[in-house]
This record gives sequence, structure tokens and C-alpha cells, in this order.
Amino acid sequence: MRDFSQDHHWLSINTATIRKSNGTDLPLPVIIEACARRGIRAISPWRDQVTAAGLAQVSRLVKQHGLSLSGYCRGGMFPAADAAGLKAARDDNRRAIDEARELNAACLVLVVGGLPGALAGKAAHKDIALSRSQVTDGIAQALEYARSVGMPLAIEPLHPMYAADRACINTMEQALDVCDELDPGRTGALGVAVDVYHVWWDPKLQSQIARAGKERLLAFHVCDWLTPTADLLNDRGMMGDGVIEIAKIRRWVEDQGFAGFSEVEIFSTGNWWQRDHDEVLDTCIARHKTAV
Amino acid sequence: MRDFSQDHHWLSINTATIRKSNGTDLPLPVIIEACARRGIRAISPWRDQVTAAGLAQVSRLVKQHGLSLSGYCRGGMFPAADAAGLKAARDDNRRAIDEARELNAACLVLVVGGLPGALAGKAAHKDIALSRSQVTDGIAQALEYARSVGMPLAIEPLHPMYAADRACINTMEQALDVCDELDPGRTGALGVAVDVYHVWWDPKLQSQIARAGKERLLAFHVCDWLTPTADLLNDRGMMGDGVIEIAKIRRWVEDQGFAGFSEVEIFSTGNWWQRDHDEVLDTCIARHKTAV
Repeated sequence: MRDFSQDHHWLSINTATIRKSNGTDLPLPVIIEACARRGIRAISPWRDQVTAAGLAQVSRLVKQHGLSLSGYCRGGMFPAADAAGLKAARDDNRRAIDEARELNAACLVLVVGGLPGALAGKAAHKDIALSRSQVTDGIAQALEYARSVGMPLAIEPLHPMYAADRACINTMEQALDVCDELDPGRTGALGVAVDVYHVWWDPKLQSQIARAGKERLLAFHVCDWLTPTADLLNDRGMMGDGVIEIAKIRRWVEDQGFAGFSEVEIFSTGNWWQRDHDEVLDTCIARHKTAV
Repeated sequence: MRDFSQDHHWLSINTATIRKSNGTDLPLPVIIEACARRGIRAISPWRDQVTAAGLAQVSRLVKQHGLSLSGYCRGGMFPAADAAGLKAARDDNRRAIDEARELNAACLVLVVGGLPGALAGKAAHKDIALSRSQVTDGIAQALEYARSVGMPLAIEPLHPMYAADRACINTMEQALDVCDELDPGRTGALGVAVDVYHVWWDPKLQSQIARAGKERLLAFHVCDWLTPTADLLNDRGMMGDGVIEIAKIRRWVEDQGFAGFSEVEIFSTGNWWQRDHDEVLDTCIARHKTAV
């Protein structure tokens, strides 16, 4: 297991973590500068932030600062209520793959979607098995294109509390079943993003990380689970402030040969997004050394 | 699959559902009268409500109205930070078993506990594997006594969002592994309470219900998953208002031979607990016919 205690060589910042500074939206170029100034070597930006700043400018800034992308957030959202919706999702994932390639991301992270319409508050149907079938089909189609341009796809199993509205792939086991079905040769074109927030509770986590192996472990995300948790989406904790055994899980991942970045991804309406982003980044660096 | 559309013969009311009426605590005797008045044949009361009303009075009222108890809520909370805490939990579970027996409950429902202290906001440690080990030990001890008095124990796998503070048994598969370990003979002394709210998302739900079989399916709880869900604990929906395929899951359970009550258990600070309990009960009866 790598020693993180001395530096932040393997720290990546998911740009959602400082999406807001003092409660106000922070543009991606400012986020990139703030990371680069601290010698942070990698980021994982969100598509909406990239779109707002312009892909060309972001690409230029990333190169200028010599930043790596530990991932690109995000593709997915495959299920739809009709054929037009399915096609729109397919087209959008193709664009996401192109953007990830332009930015030279290590992988495109897939948040696969749940029941169509549920995120807007009104599910078109309740058939989660149908959504799961559409997800597998959608990943298969995306994978064909992603392979052709050399962009790995990382399925991110989301916590079961997001099964209805954000992702109906909810365990490592389920994600790896899809990987086995669509990439039986373990080529590295398809794998998983392990976010400790989503999977820490899983009694099968260690065995499924071992099952994944180096070829399928494409990203490692960290934050913490707070007790109590005030909001299902936006009350994630800074590493060390919650109950997740982050270092133990990192060891399991690294025991399989994972040697990439630890990407900090914190959504926090009430706490971290209310603070100044400089304080948040400094805290991420400190906690990366002590709690990851 | 039984036809529920014509009557509420198989409806049970978990008394937490009308714990409050118009935002105010409702005493258990009033709850019992309100259920009996509507020809509801079963309830599942909570220990704190029984304690407040007095066990003897509750026992008398239950008999007087000819009510069944589809379960008794609840035993469990096994993990502790020290030996004294473990012993206190053991003693408390013994008392819960005695109370369940006095009330002639179909089973004692076990909410097994998580990280000690987490429910109060400060976990004594983060070692969920240790908690899980203490849970298995605690159930083993409780089972010995429960067998001797003929009270079945129903492990309730809780949604993974409660893994830290309420229950570190979070899937049917995990609960059934414990059942297999402690009751390999499938005697009926140990089984599971299937609450659709906790397990609906699980891609292995159907296969694990089949694995459980009639001997291990001791209780069936219903409510619904709302989108969005505003609170991790107390924003559960009335059947039909959310995204759970309740009837499909009931069919899976009944296909195994389950022939007990469908127990409505809704925690709802912002909605149902603000309404009059008469309205809530009438709605439960109506939805039992149309959405369960």
C-alpha cells in the first residue's frame, strides 16, 4: 500500500468538490488554477462545468498545467421511456466519450441512470428490471464506440438510496456481472469506479474488489459517510469526519494492483460548498495524508 | 397470490404508522381502538409505545379486540463498545422476547444495530466487520432463549443507508447467511422480515426470497419509496405513492408459501404524521386493496 502521509502526489480533485465557493458557483478555470497552484496533479471535471467554460479552453488549461484527469464525470443515464429517449442517451454518451478523449481522461465514469423521469420527481414506470436491461444495452453500445477511440468506461455502482433516480447499478457485484457479460476478456475497456461512499456498507466489498482485479479497477473515489446524514445527495463528509474505513478499502484496491489517483468527490450543500474553496482544497490535501 | 382487492383481511398496521396524529403523539390504546374499529385484524406495536401504555394493559386490549400481532418491534441493537454494553443488549433482547411472547406476537423483529454510538452521532469505532460479528453472536444468544420460549426471531435487513447507525445487516443475502449459520435446520425459529422499503432496490431480491423459502419468511412490511426522498429515516411513502413494485414483491414472497399479514410501516414526519390518524388508517385500507 502506497504511503500517502508525506505528500499529495496521488491526490485528485473531483471538481464537484469545489463546485461552489462561499456558496457561489466557481468556474472550472478558477478550480483548475487553484488545484495547479497547490501542486495537485489530477482533477476529474464534470461535463456541465466543462461546457460552461468551453471544451477547448479546458483542454488548453489542462495541458498548460500538465494535469491528468483521473476520470471524466460523467456518461450514463441510459434508461428512457421511449425510443427517442434511448437514442438521445446513446448520442449523448458518444459526445461524452469524445470529450473525455479530448481531455485525455483515464476513464469516462458512468452513472447509469434509474427509472426514467424519477430524477425529475415523476417516474415513467416502476420496472427497475427494465431499466437495468436498458442500462446493459446502453453500456454495450457505448462500449463499442469507446473501444474504437480507446476510452475506458468505468461503471460507478451508486449507493442503493439512488436506485430509483440516479443509478440502478448499486453494488460492485452487479457492476462486475455487467463487466463479465460485456467484456469477458477483461481487456481493460470496461471496469468500475469504486467510490467508498457508495460501497463501504457492502458485506461483499472486499471479495468483489478482489474479483474486479487490476483490469477492472479504473478509479477510486473518496469522501466520508456522516452520522447523521442530513441529505441523501449533498451531505457527504470530508475524509476522516465520518465512519468509512477509507484506508482499509484503499488497501484492498491497491492489493489488486490499482496504482492510480485517490479522487476526492464531496457534495456538501450545507458545509464544504459554503466555505472558501482555498480552505476546502487545503483540507483535502491534509486529509489525503491522514485519512486516506 | 391472494386477492387483496376486496377487503383488508390481511392488513396489519405497524403502530409507528400512526405514532403521531396531527403531529401529536398518539397513545397505543387509542391506536388499538382505531384499528379494531375498522376491522383491522393485526397490528405490530413498538416497545416504547407498549412501555408507555403498560404491557398488561396492551395485552388485555389486544386480547379484548381479538387482534393478532404480525410482529413485535423490536429487538436487536446488539453491537456495543464494551462488555457491559454487550451484556445490556443481551438482557434487553431477553426482555423483548418475553414481551413478544406475552403479546403472542408472530415474531420478534430484529433491527440488529450498527456501529456503537453512531445513532447518537458519535461512533465508538468504524469497524463494521466487528459490529457484524457482534450481531451474529448476539442473535445466537437471543436465539437460544427465543427457542426455549417458542418466539421466532425475524432479522430485518435494513436499507444500506442505515448501515452505520441502525443495522449492519443490509441485504437479504447477508441476513440469510446468518440464518444458515445459526439455524441450518431451517426450524422456523430464525428468519427474515422482508420490508419492501429496505430491499426493493436489490438486484438479487427475487432469488434471495426464493432462497429464504416459507420457513424463513416471517414477516412482510410495506410502504413506498418516494422520489425525491427528503429524509433518510422519516420520509417513507404510502403504498402507491412511490416507485416500489409492491405487488410483484408480494407475489415472490407468496410464491414461497408466505400467507401472513402485509404490515404497513410508514415513518413520515412531514406528511402522514401531520394528518389525522383516522385519515391515515382509511388510506392504508384503501391502498392495501389497490397498491399492495
